[in-house]
Amino acid sequence: MKTVGLIVEYNPFHNGHLLHLERSLRVSGADASVAVMSGPFTQRGEPALLSKRARAEMALAAGVDLVLELPVLYALQPAEWFAFGGASLLDATGVVSSLCFGSESGEIAPLEELASRMQGGESPAMREALKQALAEGLSFPAAYAKAASGQGGGDSAAAAALLGNPNDMLGLHYVLALRRLASGITPLAVRREQAGYHDAGLPAGGSIASATAVRAALARGEGGPGEAAPYLPPSSLAVLRREALAGRMLADGWEALAQPLLTALITRSPEELALVPGMDEGLEHRIAAALPRLPVPGTEALLSAIKTKRYTRTRLQRLLAHALLNHRGPLFGRDSLARGPRYIRVLGFSPKGRQLLKTMKKTAKLPVVVRAADFDHPQLGLDIRAAAVHASAFPSPGIREMYADYYAPPVTEF
Amino acid sequence: MKTVGLIVEYNPFHNGHLLHLERSLRVSGADASVAVMSGPFTQRGEPALLSKRARAEMALAAGVDLVLELPVLYALQPAEWFAFGGASLLDATGVVSSLCFGSESGEIAPLEELASRMQGGESPAMREALKQALAEGLSFPAAYAKAASGQGGGDSAAAAALLGNPNDMLGLHYVLALRRLASGITPLAVRREQAGYHDAGLPAGGSIASATAVRAALARGEGGPGEAAPYLPPSSLAVLRREALAGRMLADGWEALAQPLLTALITRSPEELALVPGMDEGLEHRIAAALPRLPVPGTEALLSAIKTKRYTRTRLQRLLAHALLNHRGPLFGRDSLARGPRYIRVLGFSPKGRQLLKTMKKTAKLPVVVRAADFDHPQLGLDIRAAAVHASAFPSPGIREMYADYYAPPVTEF
Repeated sequence: MKTVGLIVEYNPFHNGHLLHLERSLRVSGADASVAVMSGPFTQRGEPALLSKRARAEMALAAGVDLVLELPVLYALQPAEWFAFGGASLLDATGVVSSLCFGSESGEIAPLEELASRMQGGESPAMREALKQALAEGLSFPAAYAKAASGQGGGDSAAAAALLGNPNDMLGLHYVLALRRLASGITPLAVRREQAGYHDAGLPAGGSIASATAVRAALARGEGGPGEAAPYLPPSSLAVLRREALAGRMLADGWEALAQPLLTALITRSPEELALVPGMDEGLEHRIAAALPRLPVPGTEALLSAIKTKRYTRTRLQRLLAHALLNHRGPLFGRDSLARGPRYIRVLGFSPKGRQLLKTMKKTAKLPVVVRAADFDHPQLGLDIRAAAVHASAFPSPGIREMYADYYAPPVTEF
Repeated sequence: MKTVGLIVEYNPFHNGHLLHLERSLRVSGADASVAVMSGPFTQRGEPALLSKRARAEMALAAGVDLVLELPVLYALQPAEWFAFGGASLLDATGVVSSLCFGSESGEIAPLEELASRMQGGESPAMREALKQALAEGLSFPAAYAKAASGQGGGDSAAAAALLGNPNDMLGLHYVLALRRLASGITPLAVRREQAGYHDAGLPAGGSIASATAVRAALARGEGGPGEAAPYLPPSSLAVLRREALAGRMLADGWEALAQPLLTALITRSPEELALVPGMDEGLEHRIAAALPRLPVPGTEALLSAIKTKRYTRTRLQRLLAHALLNHRGPLFGRDSLARGPRYIRVLGFSPKGRQLLKTMKKTAKLPVVVRAADFDHPQLGLDIRAAAVHASAFPSPGIREMYADYYAPPVTEF
């Protein structure tokens, strides 16, 4: 079976994702698909709308054959490590021949060229150049393009325009990660339709909206899909309705975690806060000073209070997620991240996915974890904790949902 | 002014407290009263029903002249340190001549005698004897009495009966603390009326019920005083009604803090949990193992799951409070506790209390803190954090209530 790999969040799985899946299968000529999906927290540093299990179910129902979990250690990271974690897992399956990613440009050649100029990764010299370009006041994509191009000349302005597209930026990192892994997987860019990544509005008449717009509509929907319905495949709608009814939809996202988040921040001294991964440049003092001055005890209020030009919202949200989850220590350092995920966690599979898992018994380069209770690793420990904290914020929280990693087998019915 | 000192929780201030205040003034012949009150968390390890500010207001309205805060470092401790913290503060005012405590026996002589036999405190030898007596299966009061008596002979059975009364046990520790401080304050026992300390029922026809029974009635009262009304002075009722209406009454206690508590426990490894003060004998593993097996994600469910003969509910609740508040480190060790409170925090005062504060400018042995923002000490930092976490659990949480330590002056109108 020729198999295409995807790196996804499916928060939730919508028509745009369906289109990407279909195009990826076509472009790659694959008969089967593997998706590496972030778990309870997404790369933007937000708690996912639904459990990873429900999101895996949506993906399987829409035609994905095998859903793997991107460990939270990699999900809550900047593009470099998010991409490396995802690409590592696809590579480790030993069954994936191409990685298809949606991109604004739809072109792979400029990314391959930029990757070549970067000589395979972010060198210390490039990180220094990036720092300097940011200090000069350039936006992150412009600074990144300048630093990356600078290593071997090239058109920095064109690169800046390209990397201004968040998905092309991710794409560059997929290319870099696959080279770093000396992987046989071919990266393929698939042009994204219509809705921009961060678009908040629902396009009138169309069937494709951004996940951000879909979530915003769901938050307005008073527990049902509401205005979001036209932008979701029927299979997603069914899962969504069931989860919402069961009190397992986190429609107000971070606000539902405000009390434990604020408690985690209030009860740590600035010295302890400084241990949170990504807490740089005295941000711990900024947070400690902001807390007593917030207009209301909420996450949005906190984000507004601590946001500056230097800290994007995404970066701050990831930081808050790390603080909430008590992330700290060498596990979150570059050396640890560079070792890659240490297991392949299976969230669900189709009959074809079952065949892939059989093949993987021979081809996989990492242990395949079907039941979390059978495997022990600090990375997996983080995943189990993140899921428990996430599900504790559901409108009707339950222990079996919080610890579904222990209790529930992979999704095979959908 | 002759001034009597009280060590209290007022959770909330009820008719029994009023009776104790009146008797204390009469027995001591005092014209004024100072109460050292625990803050947002009580000695039983429970979040208080109302803010310390509202409870101070109740006390002042009922006739107490000066309300001081017992630092949370001492409030969340076994009798030995709770009593030492309270007695230290009364002693440090330099204006208190007697300490009146309610007791089941109403007699001071047996406590004085037992204190003499203990030669001023819990020696390492006595703690060893206590451990052994507990290992033999004796109840804590019986084991304590045996260990205390053993040091110099005496009637262990009579002492056991006496110390079986929780307030006599506290009384013993007041006597010990005053001796240890070489204080000029005279301890006086005042017999408690009717309701036992832990009695859960409301006595029909009477006007005095235990604080436990009053809180239980308030929890059933759907936001108002309900059945608890006959057991509260009108001034307490007024404060209670106002606070409940403003969404600042924690009627369901620990359950309102279940989400941050569970998050604090879930996100710590057993090694980190072991750093929580009072986490002994592998209890950290017991907690970690219990979490995924709870019937529901609540505090009561957790307490039931981890309770054993060796860990009383009170001890477990204090431990959970320490975990919630991220308490750890040398500040919580015996050496630190033995140094006593490092400041006198004023929560509120009457006109007579204002006179006492004037006198204290000359007599006080510790800095008198009227505005928390003006003083900096790790003990006070803990108090400010504890108040913020406590108030974040109110039905209508607000930042100004969470950080009232910064924003609100002492209570002077009531």
